[in-house]
Amino acid sequence: MSGDQSLLKRLNRMAIVRQIKSRPGMARGELARVTGLADSTISVLVNELIEEGWIKATESAGGGGVGRRPKLLALDPDRIAILGAEVGVDYLNVVACSLRGQVLFSRMGDYQHGAVERSVGDLARLLAEARHTMTAAGRRLLGVGVGVPGMVAPGGLLRLAPALGWREVAFGDLLTEALHEARRPDLPVTLLNDANAAALSEYVFGASLTVRSLIFLSLGYGLGAGIVLDDQLQVGRDGGSGEVGHVILRPDGAPCACGRRGCAETLISQKEVSRLMTGRDLPVLHIGELLDRQERHDLALARAAREVGAHLGLVLHNLVVTINPELVVLGGPLSRLDGLVEAAQEALQRYAGASPNHQVLARVSRLGLDACAVGAAGGVLNQLLQRGETAPARALA
Amino acid sequence: MSGDQSLLKRLNRMAIVRQIKSRPGMARGELARVTGLADSTISVLVNELIEEGWIKATESAGGGGVGRRPKLLALDPDRIAILGAEVGVDYLNVVACSLRGQVLFSRMGDYQHGAVERSVGDLARLLAEARHTMTAAGRRLLGVGVGVPGMVAPGGLLRLAPALGWREVAFGDLLTEALHEARRPDLPVTLLNDANAAALSEYVFGASLTVRSLIFLSLGYGLGAGIVLDDQLQVGRDGGSGEVGHVILRPDGAPCACGRRGCAETLISQKEVSRLMTGRDLPVLHIGELLDRQERHDLALARAAREVGAHLGLVLHNLVVTINPELVVLGGPLSRLDGLVEAAQEALQRYAGASPNHQVLARVSRLGLDACAVGAAGGVLNQLLQRGETAPARALA
Repeated sequence: MSGDQSLLKRLNRMAIVRQIKSRPGMARGELARVTGLADSTISVLVNELIEEGWIKATESAGGGGVGRRPKLLALDPDRIAILGAEVGVDYLNVVACSLRGQVLFSRMGDYQHGAVERSVGDLARLLAEARHTMTAAGRRLLGVGVGVPGMVAPGGLLRLAPALGWREVAFGDLLTEALHEARRPDLPVTLLNDANAAALSEYVFGASLTVRSLIFLSLGYGLGAGIVLDDQLQVGRDGGSGEVGHVILRPDGAPCACGRRGCAETLISQKEVSRLMTGRDLPVLHIGELLDRQERHDLALARAAREVGAHLGLVLHNLVVTINPELVVLGGPLSRLDGLVEAAQEALQRYAGASPNHQVLARVSRLGLDACAVGAAGGVLNQLLQRGETAPARALA
Repeated sequence: MSGDQSLLKRLNRMAIVRQIKSRPGMARGELARVTGLADSTISVLVNELIEEGWIKATESAGGGGVGRRPKLLALDPDRIAILGAEVGVDYLNVVACSLRGQVLFSRMGDYQHGAVERSVGDLARLLAEARHTMTAAGRRLLGVGVGVPGMVAPGGLLRLAPALGWREVAFGDLLTEALHEARRPDLPVTLLNDANAAALSEYVFGASLTVRSLIFLSLGYGLGAGIVLDDQLQVGRDGGSGEVGHVILRPDGAPCACGRRGCAETLISQKEVSRLMTGRDLPVLHIGELLDRQERHDLALARAAREVGAHLGLVLHNLVVTINPELVVLGGPLSRLDGLVEAAQEALQRYAGASPNHQVLARVSRLGLDACAVGAAGGVLNQLLQRGETAPARALA
């Protein structure tokens, strides 16, 4: 840890990394101006951060003037890696990415969960493979972020993952233990709700770095939202923010697994797409099966996707009148189904009227099925930056 | 203005006022500890703030020990006043309150709006009466906050107040002009959406000063919410946050004034209570008439209140699963109807299931019909504290 770093120094290092992250291509002089730090302080800290692999300096294209050209600073994409993972209801996904969110390693596969210990063991094996690939390529690791389909409390406690039947599991501790390797420092584990993680993929690594409020809707086995407002991921009093799958759309609708009726998840979910196609509740068609059928231009799938998308438009309307965000991003497996997002956007426009709230930018995540895992890695970076811990020694393994 | 105060000094004064506000009864020593300021700085600034009427020092009850008892510091309720007002759809309300939110003056009356200039003129006359009452009592005034039933943009622009037919009105400027008095400094005017103002009545002056997230639901002619998350009033990208009256509860429901169908306002509003009682859309019974009938134990009113309350329970459920706040406060005229809030709370409990989000504290505002006006005054104080302007000279008139 940074026992040898004063709090002030840590905060100054953090300020520098944050500024360079939000405005890549700054020169040292501009950095001094925006942070208010002395040139000499900037010089010492920037050199330190370059040495540790956080930032890199490149020659500016230069205007051919006299004298030395200023070096331009940006996050270094080549020397540090962060691991991210998603525990899907019917798959596991593990990625490694750079400080800029570029995906360097990705392993995704169908998975049937049972006892939590087995899932943790298999996840740890995939993560170890990613770790070894990264260290073999000369990268240092900051930590591991994991998105799970459930409610997460501080300290890595998974309170409840209804679709997996897990309850009050010390997931963070279990995974830390399973990841332990002799003669290597433990990697810090950050546990996040899957939709919250996905929201961070946009907030931490998104193309629009100036966005301060967004909602990420995660469309998959269930339906969840991650909400960033006022530059903060909003997790709620109990970590239960964004449970929009259980907003009630039809008080007399179909029974939901939660015990209520007419929840949004009964109308917008992989289960419902599957049910509309097969006429049966079970088995739920896997996402791989759905994407295969899409390649074969399955008409029942196309119809189901549009029907589910229209319901999604109603949920979007209700969210934008309640929260008025700058950006809505749609992700998760179902966002890959042709017609679903289009039907949702059409419905949202039908509800718009004269409301400025509806002039929201609503688009699909550019990260495809990796959004949650990449965002979980982003959560690790975000936490270090917010705490001012840009270089925890034990994590740089 | 504080042209003679350095930024640092202003921030330090602000830190002191905020600390004393959140923990009344601190002694100077404790204040030095929590702010990190030197004893000598604390001493100078506290004396200044006492002189200006912001804080007062009282003898501690004391344990009978030897030596001088430490003086306890709290916001001074006796020397400063803030004006607050609500432009209701069918009434005007003006209050003056102390730094602690105690109501010192209150004038409420039915009002029929037409041209915005007439309403501004009548509002200004009520505010002038409040101002003169306060200055006659020896109080200095910080400013005027006004809550309006519409969407507000920065700079005091009222974008749209659908129920009043006002659109793109420079309400703040009009009111500043109407309030102008020769040989007195202009009072700064802060314009807020009515539900946002009401939320500040709880956040700025509420009994639970430790609450960092809350939703205030304003139940009246329409339905709106003010949302405080992460210690910030969330107004949204366009000032349109909290428009929960236009969350769609029934896609095939009754037409709403906004042009959509089945909006929450069609089921939860003064219009709907009135319609359930009379069987007609118009005229909408005034709140005074409703409260009179309540005194006469009108059964149709009691039934309508419970029916509307049950729909409100659904809105509450949808909000707590989406946002997971610490506190929900119900206010506005309809919260005075017997049975309405109870029916909403019963419905919320029916939807609770095993969700921790539903263990939210949901209660009625203690301020009754003054919540919006008092909260608008709170908005003035909040703004000064957040900007570090505890004593703008031109406002202390």
